[in-house]
Amino acid sequence: MAYDLYYWPMIPGRGEYPRLVLEAAGVVYRDVARLPESEGGGIRAMQAFMAGSGSRRLPFAPPFLVDGDIVVSQAAEICAYVGERHRLAPAGEADRLFARAIALTTADFVAEAHDVHHPLGVGLYYEDQTEAALVRAQGFREERIPKFLGWYERLLAGNASGSAYLVGGTMTYADLGLFQTMSGLRYAFPRRMATLEADYPGIAALVGRVAVQPAVAAYLASERRMAFNEDGIFRNYPELDAE
Amino acid sequence: MAYDLYYWPMIPGRGEYPRLVLEAAGVVYRDVARLPESEGGGIRAMQAFMAGSGSRRLPFAPPFLVDGDIVVSQAAEICAYVGERHRLAPAGEADRLFARAIALTTADFVAEAHDVHHPLGVGLYYEDQTEAALVRAQGFREERIPKFLGWYERLLAGNASGSAYLVGGTMTYADLGLFQTMSGLRYAFPRRMATLEADYPGIAALVGRVAVQPAVAAYLASERRMAFNEDGIFRNYPELDAE
Repeated sequence: MAYDLYYWPMIPGRGEYPRLVLEAAGVVYRDVARLPESEGGGIRAMQAFMAGSGSRRLPFAPPFLVDGDIVVSQAAEICAYVGERHRLAPAGEADRLFARAIALTTADFVAEAHDVHHPLGVGLYYEDQTEAALVRAQGFREERIPKFLGWYERLLAGNASGSAYLVGGTMTYADLGLFQTMSGLRYAFPRRMATLEADYPGIAALVGRVAVQPAVAAYLASERRMAFNEDGIFRNYPELDAE
Repeated sequence: MAYDLYYWPMIPGRGEYPRLVLEAAGVVYRDVARLPESEGGGIRAMQAFMAGSGSRRLPFAPPFLVDGDIVVSQAAEICAYVGERHRLAPAGEADRLFARAIALTTADFVAEAHDVHHPLGVGLYYEDQTEAALVRAQGFREERIPKFLGWYERLLAGNASGSAYLVGGTMTYADLGLFQTMSGLRYAFPRRMATLEADYPGIAALVGRVAVQPAVAAYLASERRMAFNEDGIFRNYPELDAE
């Protein structure tokens, strides 16, 4: 069984969340929009699917994952789908549902990170909303980042299994999501994160542990791993960063 | 088995999404923060739970649902949890997962509706970001509402069961979510919706059908149903509306 993942090929963006889970699980998948058109790939293949070429179950937006008749969209839902099938989810229903809540909350955090540079709307260029972005970025840096990171840190401290993962006794897709989000925050807000990170030692340790997990480490060192850039969710605009 | 739902008692907000599913399912639940403190309710009970009084599985934010050891947070996840247990979800895994994607996409739509009046951040008053809200509202009215509604309309037209519901052959929590969102949009953007709605006859018909479903109709006529107001997600600020 091979999965087809669809996402914009030029940015890690929200597609990187399910991609990391697929890689950590070591499962076979096609990254369709990054394949050549001669192999059925490219953006046009993705857009054709969204227009109905592959299923009546239309995704609203990428990323989406196709697994036979099944079309899973929304990054957190894809992560849960893959994680639960490939030993990257907690055992037990209560922890399994809690992992879903964590991943969905991470998706909200990511949406806020995006809106920092597009507070007035996705239809406008960043350059046309820089003043508004300066205001939004201040609240994000000073209130929202600490609020989210404080919550993750409390989860790590309160995990009943003592595993130092967010939920349950082993690494799950929820941890991979936090890893990717921390990577993005460090890229986009290096000065702020340098100041903040000492307050969240559990998160820093988790990020380090995820990065050296063999399948993750191999992926991060591969050409499949995309660098962050200024077309994506996490953008390094120095004017939006501060200690 | 009785569920405990927790959400801010003064607004329908995101809590109304799971509340509608609980009501449509006809299940017993306590709306904890709306109960008197003498019955273990009130905002303080909700905040105590979020601080760890009830579970190590801490929700990041309301709404959340407590069902014994299980704590489900994120509005769409609660809707799926209740819907799948009480015949308000599609049969079959592919449709079941598609309903989840629809509910999560609706949650994104709701977040955008909120950000129309808070584009610069949740830490600032509306009155301090009115100019930015005017810009964001225009894009929301002219681009985002049609994009989301167009997607729902296509789902209704493409439903293989011919049921005129979003997915599968019967009403599901995905339909209830669209109903609530349309109610909010009509409240917040009456002029825009009056202009737009004729373009989406399938949605209008669905909303009407949901409203007369007996359990839903009884709930809507009850005192439990809260009116929209200007502290919530959907706010009627006339300056943000236009044809």
